Amino acid sequence: MKSNTSCSDEERYKVRKLEITDNNKGFMELLQQLTVCDSISNDEFKKRFEELKLYGDDHVICVIEDVTSSKIVATGSVFIEKKFIRSCGNVGHIEDVVVDSSARGMQLGKKVVGFLADHARLRGCYKVILDCSPDNKAFYEKCGFKEKEIQMVKYFI
Amino acid sequence: MKSNTSCSDEERYKVRKLEITDNNKGFMELLQQLTVCDSISNDEFKKRFEELKLYGDDHVICVIEDVTSSKIVATGSVFIEKKFIRSCGNVGHIEDVVVDSSARGMQLGKKVVGFLADHARLRGCYKVILDCSPDNKAFYEKCGFKEKEIQMVKYFI
Repeated sequence: MKSNTSCSDEERYKVRKLEITDNNKGFMELLQQLTVCDSISNDEFKKRFEELKLYGDDHVICVIEDVTSSKIVATGSVFIEKKFIRSCGNVGHIEDVVVDSSARGMQLGKKVVGFLADHARLRGCYKVILDCSPDNKAFYEKCGFKEKEIQMVKYFI
Repeated sequence: MKSNTSCSDEERYKVRKLEITDNNKGFMELLQQLTVCDSISNDEFKKRFEELKLYGDDHVICVIEDVTSSKIVATGSVFIEKKFIRSCGNVGHIEDVVVDSSARGMQLGKKVVGFLADHARLRGCYKVILDCSPDNKAFYEKCGFKEKEIQMVKYFI
């Protein structure tokens, strides 16, 4: 019999798309664990959120909320690139995957990547790709990915 | 004095954005030198062209036309990804760069990559990235890129 005071991981960690109120649930603080990420005002957050909303299903940010603390503990994004090659094929690009340091070891990263890859597949992509450090290769292999190319970068600042 | 019957490389190879008439100028045949790329009907080309047009400057395809033959001899694309990290920073993603086999050795690839990187910079990107095979690393280094991460891929078909 299920207790009223505790819940399963599935009930506790809610996988969903980013909502406009998530700036108050630690979304930006979570991204700070990934890379350089200054705090932004609610207006700046709202502006970017609305810009991304214009892309509809072509740019989706997945979050996992810990409903016991109302904190965002994992996230990742995917955008759909429309090509001319492969009979006007689509490719999903996964970016900015991170799991809160206090919530690791519970397969939340795998859940985020699965959500994003499923989204790309359902939007007709023939593949989904991402760039990562060699340190994260084993994790993405567990998610069904294989190493293929190298990433090159040019910084402007 | 300039001859009327010949022109400089700069006059001969016109760098510009993709136009809807480029399906009749060998654009798809050029992409076939890059990867799997079946011919598509003019309607299919037009449909995808219009879909991409909705993104405005957030998705740009550069082509180089040889004005002496009215053939597209080089191309590449860039799309601008809007992020929350780095104070709502933007990143340019370069894709599908190819130069016609008959037009290599004239720095046309470098011109395409330069056009795309400049576009990303002018759109406020803090960096521009691309994935390539290790064989093409030296070319992109000449374009000012450095190797950074590894690309992982998951195919759906």
